Amino acid sequence: MTVNGWHERKIRVRYKDTDQMGVIYYGNYLTFFEVGRSEYLRDLGFPYSSLEAEGYFMAVTEAYAKYHANVGYDSLITVKTKVTGLKNASVRFEYEVVDEDYELLVSGYTIHACMNSNHKPTRIPSRLRKIIEENLKPL
Amino acid sequence: MTVNGWHERKIRVRYKDTDQMGVIYYGNYLTFFEVGRSEYLRDLGFPYSSLEAEGYFMAVTEAYAKYHANVGYDSLITVKTKVTGLKNASVRFEYEVVDEDYELLVSGYTIHACMNSNHKPTRIPSRLRKIIEENLKPL
Amino acid sequence: MTVNGWHERKIRVRYKDTDQMGVIYYGNYLTFFEVGRSEYLRDLGFPYSSLEAEGYFMAVTEAYAKYHANVGYDSLITVKTKVTGLKNASVRFEYEVVDEDYELLVSGYTIHACMNSNHKPTRIPSRLRKIIEENLKPL
Amino acid sequence: MTVNGWHERKIRVRYKDTDQMGVIYYGNYLTFFEVGRSEYLRDLGFPYSSLEAEGYFMAVTEAYAKYHANVGYDSLITVKTKVTGLKNASVRFEYEVVDEDYELLVSGYTIHACMNSNHKPTRIPSRLRKIIEENLKPL
Repeated sequence: MTVNGWHERKIRVRYKDTDQMGVIYYGNYLTFFEVGRSEYLRDLGFPYSSLEAEGYFMAVTEAYAKYHANVGYDSLITVKTKVTGLKNASVRFEYEVVDEDYELLVSGYTIHACMNSNHKPTRIPSRLRKIIEENLKPL
Repeated sequence: MTVNGWHERKIRVRYKDTDQMGVIYYGNYLTFFEVGRSEYLRDLGFPYSSLEAEGYFMAVTEAYAKYHANVGYDSLITVKTKVTGLKNASVRFEYEVVDEDYELLVSGYTIHACMNSNHKPTRIPSRLRKIIEENLKPL
Repeated sequence: MTVNGWHERKIRVRYKDTDQMGVIYYGNYLTFFEVGRSEYLRDLGFPYSSLEAEGYFMAVTEAYAKYHANVGYDSLITVKTKVTGLKNASVRFEYEVVDEDYELLVSGYTIHACMNSNHKPTRIPSRLRKIIEENLKPL
Repeated sequence: MTVNGWHERKIRVRYKDTDQMGVIYYGNYLTFFEVGRSEYLRDLGFPYSSLEAEGYFMAVTEAYAKYHANVGYDSLITVKTKVTGLKNASVRFEYEVVDEDYELLVSGYTIHACMNSNHKPTRIPSRLRKIIEENLKPL
Protein backbone atom coordinates (compact mmCIF):
# COMPACT_ATOMS: atom_id res chain seq x y z
CA MET A 1 0.00 0.00 0.00
CA THR A 2 1.40 3.41 -0.93
CA VAL A 3 0.45 6.59 0.98
CA ASN A 4 1.90 10.04 0.12
CA GLY A 5 4.71 8.44 -1.87
CA TRP A 6 5.64 5.99 0.91
CA HIS A 7 5.01 2.27 0.73
CA GLU A 8 3.51 1.17 4.05
CA ARG A 9 3.70 -2.16 5.82
CA LYS A 10 2.39 -2.96 9.30
CA ILE A 11 4.39 -5.11 11.74
CA ARG A 12 3.24 -6.41 15.11
CA VAL A 13 6.03 -6.10 17.69
CA ARG A 14 6.99 -9.50 19.09
CA TYR A 15 8.23 -10.20 22.60
CA LYS A 16 11.44 -11.34 20.89
CA ASP A 17 11.88 -7.80 19.48
CA THR A 18 11.98 -6.16 22.90
CA ASP A 19 14.80 -5.85 25.39
CA GLN A 20 15.26 -5.27 29.12
CA MET A 21 14.45 -1.55 28.67
CA GLY A 22 10.88 -2.61 27.76
CA VAL A 23 11.10 -1.39 24.17
CA ILE A 24 12.35 -2.56 20.76
CA TYR A 25 16.10 -3.33 20.73
CA TYR A 26 17.82 -0.72 18.55
CA GLY A 27 19.36 -3.20 16.12
CA ASN A 28 15.99 -4.77 15.34
CA TYR A 29 14.91 -1.67 13.44
CA LEU A 30 17.31 -2.80 10.71
CA THR A 31 15.22 -5.96 10.48
CA PHE A 32 12.10 -3.82 10.16
CA PHE A 33 13.83 -1.82 7.41
CA GLU A 34 14.44 -5.19 5.68
CA VAL A 35 10.74 -6.07 5.95
CA GLY A 36 9.84 -2.64 4.54
CA ARG A 37 12.01 -2.84 1.43
CA SER A 38 11.24 -6.52 0.91
CA GLU A 39 7.48 -5.92 0.89
CA TYR A 40 7.95 -2.78 -1.21
CA LEU A 41 9.82 -4.72 -3.92
CA ARG A 42 7.17 -7.44 -3.82
CA ASP A 43 4.39 -4.88 -4.29
CA LEU A 44 6.33 -3.36 -7.19
CA GLY A 45 6.20 -6.78 -8.85
CA PHE A 46 9.84 -7.71 -8.27
CA PRO A 47 10.26 -9.75 -5.08
CA TYR A 48 13.82 -9.73 -3.80
CA SER A 49 13.75 -13.54 -3.79
CA SER A 50 13.27 -13.52 -7.58
CA LEU A 51 16.32 -11.26 -7.88
CA GLU A 52 18.39 -13.82 -5.97
CA ALA A 53 16.88 -16.59 -8.11
CA GLU A 54 18.32 -14.75 -11.14
CA GLY A 55 21.77 -14.79 -9.54
CA TYR A 56 21.92 -11.27 -8.09
CA PHE A 57 22.35 -10.02 -4.53
CA MET A 58 21.77 -6.61 -3.01
CA ALA A 59 24.53 -6.30 -0.40
CA VAL A 60 24.06 -3.53 2.15
CA THR A 61 26.88 -0.96 2.02
CA GLU A 62 25.51 1.62 4.48
CA ALA A 63 22.79 1.75 7.12
CA TYR A 64 21.71 4.67 9.26
CA ALA A 65 18.98 5.01 11.88
CA LYS A 66 17.88 7.99 13.97
CA TYR A 67 15.84 7.09 17.05
CA HIS A 68 13.08 9.51 18.05
CA ALA A 69 10.85 7.39 20.30
CA ASN A 70 10.27 3.74 21.02
CA VAL A 71 7.48 1.27 21.81
CA GLY A 72 7.15 -2.16 23.40
CA TYR A 73 5.58 -5.56 22.91
CA ASP A 74 2.37 -5.89 20.92
CA SER A 75 2.52 -2.40 19.40
CA LEU A 76 1.36 -2.28 15.81
CA ILE A 77 4.03 -0.27 14.04
CA THR A 78 4.20 0.76 10.37
CA VAL A 79 7.33 0.72 8.25
CA LYS A 80 7.26 3.34 5.49
CA THR A 81 9.69 2.82 2.60
CA LYS A 82 10.63 4.67 -0.55
CA VAL A 83 13.51 4.61 -3.03
CA THR A 84 15.43 7.88 -2.94
CA GLY A 85 18.52 7.08 -5.01
CA LEU A 86 19.56 5.01 -8.01
CA LYS A 87 23.00 4.61 -9.58
CA ASN A 88 24.36 2.06 -12.06
CA ALA A 89 25.09 -0.53 -9.42
CA SER A 90 23.46 0.80 -6.27
CA VAL A 91 20.12 1.84 -4.82
CA ARG A 92 19.15 3.84 -1.75
CA PHE A 93 16.06 3.23 0.39
CA GLU A 94 14.64 5.68 2.92
CA TYR A 95 12.52 4.56 5.89
CA GLU A 96 10.27 5.86 8.61
CA VAL A 97 8.89 3.63 11.34
CA VAL A 98 5.83 5.08 13.07
CA ASP A 99 3.60 3.95 15.90
CA GLU A 100 -0.17 3.42 15.86
CA ASP A 101 -0.77 7.20 15.99
CA TYR A 102 1.74 7.76 13.17
CA GLU A 103 4.17 9.35 15.62
CA LEU A 104 7.73 8.92 14.34
CA LEU A 105 9.79 6.25 16.10
CA VAL A 106 12.79 5.80 13.82
CA SER A 107 13.92 7.27 10.50
CA GLY A 108 16.84 6.10 8.39
CA TYR A 109 18.21 4.79 5.15
CA THR A 110 20.13 1.90 3.64
CA ILE A 111 22.31 1.79 0.53
CA HIS A 112 22.72 -1.46 -1.40
CA ALA A 113 25.22 -2.56 -4.05
CA CYS A 114 24.07 -4.98 -6.72
CA MET A 115 26.35 -8.03 -6.86
CA ASN A 116 26.47 -10.95 -9.28
CA SER A 117 26.83 -14.59 -8.27
CA ASN A 118 30.61 -14.09 -7.96
CA HIS A 119 29.97 -11.34 -5.40
CA LYS A 120 31.27 -8.66 -7.80
CA PRO A 121 29.48 -5.31 -8.18
CA THR A 122 27.33 -5.33 -11.29
CA ARG A 123 24.67 -3.23 -13.05
CA ILE A 124 21.19 -3.56 -11.62
CA PRO A 125 19.18 -5.84 -13.97
CA SER A 126 17.25 -3.69 -16.45
CA ARG A 127 13.75 -4.84 -15.52
CA LEU A 128 14.33 -3.93 -11.86
CA ARG A 129 16.06 -0.67 -12.88
CA LYS A 130 13.01 0.33 -14.92
CA ILE A 131 10.62 -0.35 -12.01
CA ILE A 132 12.79 1.62 -9.60
CA GLU A 133 13.12 4.57 -12.01
CA GLU A 134 9.35 4.78 -12.24
CA ASN A 135 9.03 4.88 -8.46
CA LEU A 136 12.06 6.95 -7.57
CA LYS A 137 11.49 9.82 -5.09
CA PRO A 138 14.79 11.74 -5.17
CA LEU A 139 15.75 13.44 -1.91
CA MET B 1 37.34 -26.89 29.50
CA THR B 2 35.77 -30.10 30.82
CA VAL B 3 34.46 -30.40 34.41
CA ASN B 4 32.82 -33.56 35.78
CA GLY B 5 32.25 -34.87 32.25
CA TRP B 6 30.72 -31.63 30.97
CA HIS B 7 32.41 -29.26 28.58
CA GLU B 8 32.00 -25.72 29.88
CA ARG B 9 31.85 -22.42 28.04
CA LYS B 10 31.10 -19.02 29.54
CA ILE B 11 28.84 -16.51 27.77
CA ARG B 12 28.22 -12.90 28.77
CA VAL B 13 24.50 -12.06 28.41
CA ARG B 14 23.98 -9.22 25.91
CA TYR B 15 21.26 -6.59 26.04
CA LYS B 16 20.11 -8.11 22.74
CA ASP B 17 19.51 -11.45 24.51
CA THR B 18 17.00 -9.99 26.98
CA ASP B 19 13.32 -9.21 26.57
CA GLN B 20 10.68 -7.00 28.15
CA MET B 21 10.46 -9.37 31.16
CA GLY B 22 14.03 -8.29 32.04
CA VAL B 23 15.51 -11.74 31.44
CA ILE B 24 16.85 -13.88 28.58
CA TYR B 25 14.22 -14.56 25.87
CA TYR B 26 13.36 -18.26 25.97
CA GLY B 27 14.29 -18.97 22.34
CA ASN B 28 17.80 -17.57 22.83
CA TYR B 29 18.78 -20.54 24.97
CA LEU B 30 18.82 -22.55 21.73
CA THR B 31 21.51 -20.14 20.52
CA PHE B 32 23.44 -20.76 23.73
CA PHE B 33 23.07 -24.52 23.15
CA GLU B 34 24.59 -23.88 19.69
CA VAL B 35 27.53 -22.05 21.24
CA GLY B 36 28.00 -24.90 23.72
CA ARG B 37 28.14 -27.69 21.15
CA SER B 38 30.15 -25.59 18.70
CA GLU B 39 32.86 -24.85 21.26
CA TYR B 40 32.76 -28.46 22.47
CA LEU B 41 33.44 -29.80 18.98
CA ARG B 42 36.23 -27.24 18.53
CA ASP B 43 37.87 -28.34 21.80
CA LEU B 44 37.56 -31.97 20.68
CA GLY B 45 39.63 -31.02 17.63
CA PHE B 46 36.79 -31.13 15.11
CA PRO B 47 35.26 -27.66 14.62
CA TYR B 48 31.80 -27.82 13.10
CA SER B 49 32.99 -25.44 10.37
CA SER B 50 35.50 -28.07 9.21
CA LEU B 51 32.66 -30.60 9.01
CA GLU B 52 30.76 -28.23 6.69
CA ALA B 53 33.97 -27.64 4.73
CA GLU B 54 34.02 -31.41 4.07
CA GLY B 55 30.46 -31.24 2.69
CA TYR B 56 28.48 -32.40 5.74
CA PHE B 57 25.76 -30.71 7.77
CA MET B 58 24.33 -31.52 11.17
CA ALA B 59 20.64 -30.65 10.83
CA VAL B 60 18.71 -30.36 14.08
CA THR B 61 15.85 -32.88 14.31
CA GLU B 62 14.73 -32.28 17.91
CA ALA B 63 15.30 -29.61 20.55
CA TYR B 64 14.03 -29.52 24.13
CA ALA B 65 14.53 -27.01 26.91
CA LYS B 66 13.31 -26.99 30.52
CA TYR B 67 13.39 -23.58 32.19
CA HIS B 68 14.22 -23.52 35.91
CA ALA B 69 15.29 -19.91 36.49
CA ASN B 70 16.43 -16.96 34.43
CA VAL B 71 18.85 -14.02 34.51
CA GLY B 72 19.22 -10.66 32.81
CA TYR B 73 21.73 -8.44 31.05
CA ASP B 74 25.42 -8.74 31.88
CA SER B 75 25.13 -12.02 33.75
CA LEU B 76 28.02 -14.38 33.10
CA ILE B 77 26.38 -17.71 32.37
CA THR B 78 28.01 -21.06 31.62
CA VAL B 79 26.82 -23.54 29.01
CA LYS B 80 27.65 -27.13 29.92
CA THR B 81 27.58 -29.64 27.03
CA LYS B 82 28.09 -33.37 26.65
CA VAL B 83 27.30 -36.00 24.02
CA THR B 84 24.80 -38.53 25.34
CA GLY B 85 23.84 -40.46 22.21
CA LEU B 86 25.36 -41.67 18.96
CA LYS B 87 23.74 -43.59 16.11
CA ASN B 88 24.87 -44.24 12.54
CA ALA B 89 23.58 -40.93 11.25
CA SER B 90 22.65 -38.96 14.35
CA VAL B 91 24.07 -37.57 17.56
CA ARG B 92 22.48 -36.26 20.75
CA PHE B 93 23.81 -33.42 22.87
CA GLU B 94 22.74 -32.66 26.44
CA TYR B 95 23.02 -29.16 27.96
CA GLU B 96 22.82 -27.31 31.22
CA VAL B 97 23.00 -23.54 31.42
CA VAL B 98 23.94 -22.25 34.88
CA ASP B 99 24.39 -18.81 36.42
CA GLU B 100 27.46 -17.39 38.16
CA ASP B 101 26.72 -19.44 41.29
CA TYR B 102 26.23 -22.60 39.20
CA GLU B 103 22.49 -22.52 39.90
CA LEU B 104 20.61 -24.27 37.10
CA LEU B 105 18.83 -21.94 34.66
CA VAL B 106 17.95 -24.23 31.74
CA SER B 107 18.53 -27.90 30.91
CA GLY B 108 17.83 -29.56 27.60
CA TYR B 109 19.00 -31.56 24.62
CA THR B 110 19.25 -31.44 20.84
CA ILE B 111 19.39 -34.29 18.33
CA HIS B 112 21.13 -33.82 14.99
CA ALA B 113 21.06 -35.80 11.76
CA CYS B 114 24.17 -35.93 9.63
CA MET B 115 23.42 -34.83 6.05
CA ASN B 116 25.56 -34.84 2.94
CA SER B 117 25.80 -31.97 0.48
CA ASN B 118 22.57 -33.16 -1.20
CA HIS B 119 20.79 -32.80 2.14
CA LYS B 120 20.36 -36.59 2.44
CA PRO B 121 20.94 -38.41 5.76
CA THR B 122 24.35 -40.03 5.76
CA ARG B 123 26.77 -41.79 8.12
CA ILE B 124 28.72 -39.51 10.42
CA PRO B 125 32.29 -39.23 8.99
CA SER B 126 34.52 -41.79 10.70
CA ARG B 127 37.02 -39.34 12.22
CA LEU B 128 34.22 -37.40 13.94
CA ARG B 129 32.53 -40.68 14.95
CA LYS B 130 35.72 -41.86 16.61
CA ILE B 131 36.09 -38.62 18.58
CA ILE B 132 32.47 -38.73 19.72
CA GLU B 133 32.70 -42.40 20.76
CA GLU B 134 35.66 -41.57 22.97
CA ASN B 135 33.74 -38.77 24.68
CA LEU B 136 30.28 -40.31 24.80
CA LYS B 137 28.47 -40.10 28.17
CA PRO B 138 25.41 -42.33 27.68
CA LEU B 139 22.31 -41.26 29.64
CA MET C 1 -8.66 -17.82 11.99
CA THR C 2 -9.38 -21.34 13.26
CA VAL C 3 -9.22 -24.40 10.96
CA ASN C 4 -9.89 -27.96 12.20
CA GLY C 5 -9.40 -26.87 15.80
CA TRP C 6 -6.12 -25.07 15.11
CA HIS C 7 -5.72 -21.32 15.17
CA GLU C 8 -3.76 -20.29 12.09
CA ARG C 9 -1.43 -17.35 11.53
CA LYS C 10 0.69 -16.69 8.46
CA ILE C 11 4.27 -15.40 8.77
CA ARG C 12 6.53 -14.26 5.93
CA VAL C 13 10.08 -15.57 6.48
CA ARG C 14 12.56 -12.68 6.77
CA TYR C 15 16.17 -12.72 5.64
CA LYS C 16 16.98 -12.22 9.33
CA ASP C 17 15.28 -15.56 10.13
CA THR C 18 17.60 -17.59 7.89
CA ASP C 19 21.11 -18.87 8.49
CA GLN C 20 24.11 -19.97 6.49
CA MET C 21 22.39 -23.31 5.68
CA GLY C 22 19.89 -21.29 3.59
CA VAL C 23 16.93 -22.10 5.84
CA ILE C 24 15.29 -20.88 9.06
CA TYR C 25 17.62 -21.04 12.11
CA TYR C 26 16.28 -23.72 14.47
CA GLY C 27 15.90 -21.41 17.47
CA ASN C 28 13.72 -19.00 15.51
CA TYR C 29 10.86 -21.49 15.47
CA LEU C 30 10.41 -20.65 19.16
CA THR C 31 9.79 -17.06 18.07
CA PHE C 32 7.20 -18.33 15.57
CA PHE C 33 5.58 -20.34 18.39
CA GLU C 34 5.41 -17.04 20.33
CA VAL C 35 3.69 -15.33 17.40
CA GLY C 36 1.24 -18.22 17.15
CA ARG C 37 0.16 -18.20 20.78
CA SER C 38 0.19 -14.41 20.95
CA GLU C 39 -2.16 -14.07 17.98
CA TYR C 40 -4.29 -16.94 19.26
CA LEU C 41 -4.82 -15.21 22.63
CA ARG C 42 -5.62 -11.95 20.82
CA ASP C 43 -8.23 -13.70 18.65
CA LEU C 44 -9.73 -15.28 21.78
CA GLY C 45 -10.27 -11.74 23.10
CA PHE C 46 -7.47 -11.83 25.68
CA PRO C 47 -4.24 -10.35 24.28
CA TYR C 48 -1.19 -11.38 26.26
CA SER C 49 -0.30 -7.69 26.64
CA SER C 50 -3.53 -7.15 28.60
CA LEU C 51 -2.53 -10.03 30.89
CA GLU C 52 0.78 -8.29 31.62
CA ALA C 53 -1.10 -5.01 32.09
CA GLU C 54 -3.05 -6.77 34.88
CA GLY C 55 0.23 -7.76 36.57
CA TYR C 56 0.56 -11.35 35.37
CA PHE C 57 3.26 -13.09 33.35
CA MET C 58 3.29 -16.41 31.55
CA ALA C 59 6.82 -17.70 32.05
CA VAL C 60 7.86 -20.56 29.79
CA THR C 61 8.77 -23.70 31.74
CA GLU C 62 9.26 -26.15 28.85
CA ALA C 63 9.68 -25.92 25.09
CA TYR C 64 10.02 -28.74 22.58
CA ALA C 65 10.38 -28.72 18.81
CA LYS C 66 10.64 -31.56 16.30
CA TYR C 67 12.08 -30.57 12.91
CA HIS C 68 10.65 -32.34 9.86
CA ALA C 69 11.63 -30.03 6.99
CA ASN C 70 12.73 -26.45 6.53
CA VAL C 71 12.34 -23.50 4.17
CA GLY C 72 14.21 -20.30 3.33
CA TYR C 73 13.75 -16.58 2.82
CA ASP C 74 10.42 -15.25 1.61
CA SER C 75 8.47 -18.46 2.24
CA LEU C 76 4.98 -17.86 3.56
CA ILE C 77 4.66 -20.23 6.47
CA THR C 78 1.67 -20.83 8.76
CA VAL C 79 1.85 -21.31 12.52
CA LYS C 80 -0.97 -23.48 13.85
CA THR C 81 -1.67 -23.22 17.58
CA LYS C 82 -4.03 -24.86 20.04
CA VAL C 83 -4.27 -25.20 23.82
CA THR C 84 -3.88 -28.82 24.89
CA GLY C 85 -3.50 -28.57 28.64
CA LEU C 86 -4.71 -26.46 31.55
CA LYS C 87 -3.84 -26.72 35.24
CA ASN C 88 -4.34 -24.29 38.13
CA ALA C 89 -1.24 -22.30 37.38
CA SER C 90 -0.07 -23.56 33.99
CA VAL C 91 -1.14 -23.93 30.39
CA ARG C 92 0.20 -25.99 27.49
CA PHE C 93 0.21 -24.91 23.85
CA GLU C 94 0.75 -27.23 20.89
CA TYR C 95 2.11 -25.97 17.54
CA GLU C 96 2.58 -27.01 13.95
CA VAL C 97 4.44 -24.85 11.47
CA VAL C 98 3.65 -25.71 7.84
CA ASP C 99 4.84 -24.41 4.48
CA GLU C 100 2.73 -22.97 1.65
CA ASP C 101 1.56 -26.48 0.65
CA TYR C 102 0.71 -27.28 4.29
CA GLU C 103 3.63 -29.70 4.48
CA LEU C 104 4.80 -30.04 8.07
CA LEU C 105 8.03 -28.18 8.91
CA VAL C 106 8.10 -28.21 12.70
CA SER C 107 5.82 -29.48 15.47
CA GLY C 108 6.17 -28.81 19.16
CA TYR C 109 4.77 -27.51 22.39
CA THR C 110 5.42 -25.02 25.16
CA ILE C 111 4.29 -25.06 28.79
CA HIS C 112 3.82 -21.80 30.69
CA ALA C 113 3.49 -21.02 34.38
CA CYS C 114 1.34 -18.09 35.44
CA MET C 115 3.30 -15.69 37.66
CA ASN C 116 2.22 -12.63 39.60
CA SER C 117 4.08 -9.34 39.69
CA ASN C 118 6.41 -10.77 42.37
CA HIS C 119 7.35 -13.58 39.97
CA LYS C 120 5.60 -16.17 42.15
CA PRO C 121 3.43 -18.92 40.59
CA THR C 122 -0.22 -18.00 40.85
CA ARG C 123 -3.64 -19.15 39.61
CA ILE C 124 -4.46 -18.16 36.06
CA PRO C 125 -6.90 -15.21 36.24
CA SER C 126 -10.49 -16.51 36.02
CA ARG C 127 -11.49 -14.67 32.85
CA LEU C 128 -8.53 -16.12 30.92
CA ARG C 129 -9.13 -19.55 32.51
CA LYS C 130 -12.72 -19.51 31.27
CA ILE C 131 -11.69 -18.64 27.72
CA ILE C 132 -9.05 -21.36 27.68
CA GLU C 133 -11.45 -23.98 29.08
CA GLU C 134 -13.88 -23.24 26.26
CA ASN C 135 -11.15 -23.72 23.66
CA LEU C 136 -9.18 -26.56 25.23
CA LYS C 137 -8.31 -29.48 22.91
CA PRO C 138 -6.93 -32.12 25.29
CA LEU C 139 -4.23 -34.37 23.80
CA MET D 1 42.49 -4.57 26.00
CA THR D 2 43.38 -1.27 24.34
CA VAL D 3 45.47 -1.11 21.15
CA ASN D 4 46.35 2.18 19.41
CA GLY D 5 43.61 3.99 21.30
CA TRP D 6 40.94 1.41 20.49
CA HIS D 7 39.49 -0.99 23.02
CA GLU D 8 39.40 -4.45 21.45
CA ARG D 9 37.09 -7.38 22.08
CA LYS D 10 36.99 -10.66 20.17
CA ILE D 11 33.69 -12.30 19.21
CA ARG D 12 33.24 -15.74 17.67
CA VAL D 13 30.58 -15.61 14.91
CA ARG D 14 27.65 -17.90 15.71
CA TYR D 15 25.54 -19.79 13.19
CA LYS D 16 22.67 -17.65 14.53
CA ASP D 17 24.50 -14.51 13.35
CA THR D 18 24.61 -15.59 9.71
CA ASP D 19 21.96 -15.40 7.02
CA GLN D 20 21.14 -17.07 3.74
CA MET D 21 23.91 -15.10 1.97
CA GLY D 22 26.40 -17.11 4.07
CA VAL D 23 27.65 -14.08 6.02
CA ILE D 24 26.70 -12.00 9.08
CA TYR D 25 23.25 -10.38 8.80
CA TYR D 26 23.73 -6.62 8.51
CA GLY D 27 21.62 -5.75 11.56
CA ASN D 28 23.68 -8.00 13.81
CA TYR D 29 26.65 -5.63 13.61
CA LEU D 30 24.65 -3.33 15.88
CA THR D 31 24.67 -6.15 18.43
CA PHE D 32 28.45 -6.41 18.02
CA PHE D 33 28.70 -2.63 18.55
CA GLU D 34 26.74 -3.20 21.79
CA VAL D 35 29.21 -5.87 22.90
CA GLY D 36 32.11 -3.54 22.06
CA ARG D 37 30.87 -0.57 24.10
CA SER D 38 29.61 -2.80 26.92
CA GLU D 39 33.00 -4.48 27.36
CA TYR D 40 34.76 -1.13 26.96
CA LEU D 41 32.76 0.41 29.81
CA ARG D 42 33.42 -2.66 31.96
CA ASP D 43 37.17 -2.40 31.33
CA LEU D 44 37.01 1.30 32.22
CA GLY D 45 35.62 0.26 35.60
CA PHE D 46 32.04 1.36 34.97
CA PRO D 47 29.92 -1.55 33.67
CA TYR D 48 26.76 -0.38 31.93
CA SER D 49 24.76 -2.64 34.27
CA SER D 50 25.95 -0.57 37.25
CA LEU D 51 24.75 2.56 35.47
CA GLU D 52 21.28 1.03 35.13
CA ALA D 53 21.47 -0.08 38.77
CA GLU D 54 21.90 3.61 39.68
CA GLY D 55 18.73 4.48 37.74
CA TYR D 56 20.23 5.72 34.46
CA PHE D 57 19.81 4.51 30.88
CA MET D 58 21.82 5.24 27.77
CA ALA D 59 19.21 5.33 25.00
CA VAL D 60 20.55 5.12 21.46
CA THR D 61 19.68 8.22 19.41
CA GLU D 62 21.67 7.48 16.24
CA ALA D 63 23.41 4.47 14.72
CA TYR D 64 25.42 4.26 11.52
CA ALA D 65 27.27 1.38 9.89
CA LYS D 66 29.36 1.24 6.71
CA TYR D 67 29.88 -2.26 5.32
CA HIS D 68 33.23 -2.96 3.66
CA ALA D 69 33.44 -6.77 3.67
CA ASN D 70 31.77 -9.65 5.50
CA VAL D 71 32.52 -13.06 6.95
CA GLY D 72 30.60 -16.20 7.90
CA TYR D 73 30.14 -18.74 10.68
CA ASP D 74 32.99 -19.44 13.08
CA SER D 75 35.08 -16.43 12.08
CA LEU D 76 36.83 -14.79 15.02
CA ILE D 77 36.13 -11.10 14.58
CA THR D 78 37.31 -8.17 16.72
CA VAL D 79 35.17 -5.19 17.71
CA LYS D 80 37.24 -2.04 18.23
CA THR D 81 35.58 0.73 20.25
CA LYS D 82 36.49 4.24 21.35
CA VAL D 83 34.61 7.28 22.68
CA THR D 84 34.81 10.16 20.22
CA GLY D 85 32.31 12.63 21.62
CA LEU D 86 30.94 13.81 24.97
CA LYS D 87 28.27 16.41 25.71
CA ASN D 88 26.30 17.18 28.86
CA ALA D 89 23.75 14.47 28.26
CA SER D 90 25.14 12.42 25.38
CA VAL D 91 28.12 10.35 24.35
CA ARG D 92 29.36 9.10 20.99
CA PHE D 93 31.09 5.77 20.37
CA GLU D 94 33.04 4.88 17.23
CA TYR D 95 33.53 1.27 16.08
CA GLU D 96 35.50 -0.85 13.69
CA VAL D 97 34.85 -4.55 13.25
CA VAL D 98 37.77 -6.43 11.68
CA ASP D 99 38.38 -10.03 10.66
CA GLU D 100 41.18 -12.36 11.82
CA ASP D 101 43.67 -10.57 9.54
CA TYR D 102 42.53 -7.17 10.84
CA GLU D 103 40.88 -6.41 7.48
CA LEU D 104 38.04 -3.94 7.97
CA LEU D 105 34.55 -5.45 7.82
CA VAL D 106 32.33 -2.69 9.22
CA SER D 107 32.91 0.79 10.63
CA GLY D 108 30.34 2.98 12.33
CA TYR D 109 29.19 4.94 15.31
CA THR D 110 26.37 5.23 17.83
CA ILE D 111 25.20 8.24 19.84
CA HIS D 112 23.51 7.77 23.20
CA ALA D 113 21.44 10.06 25.38
CA CYS D 114 21.60 9.69 29.13
CA MET D 115 18.12 9.25 30.62
CA ASN D 116 16.95 9.11 34.22
CA SER D 117 14.48 6.58 35.57
CA ASN D 118 11.60 8.72 34.24
CA HIS D 119 13.07 8.42 30.74
CA LYS D 120 13.97 12.12 30.69
CA PRO D 121 17.34 13.33 29.31
CA THR D 122 19.71 14.04 32.16
CA ARG D 123 23.38 14.88 32.78
CA ILE D 124 25.74 11.94 32.61
CA PRO D 125 26.63 10.97 36.22
CA SER D 126 29.89 12.67 37.22
CA ARG D 127 31.91 9.54 37.92
CA LEU D 128 31.16 8.15 34.44
CA ARG D 129 31.76 11.61 32.89
CA LYS D 130 35.18 11.76 34.48
CA ILE D 131 36.15 8.30 33.18
CA ILE D 132 34.95 9.17 29.67
CA GLU D 133 36.78 12.51 29.65
CA GLU D 134 40.02 10.72 30.49
CA ASN D 135 39.55 8.31 27.61
CA LEU D 136 38.02 10.61 25.02
CA LYS D 137 39.53 10.46 21.51
CA PRO D 138 37.90 13.41 19.71
CA LEU D 139 37.35 12.92 15.96
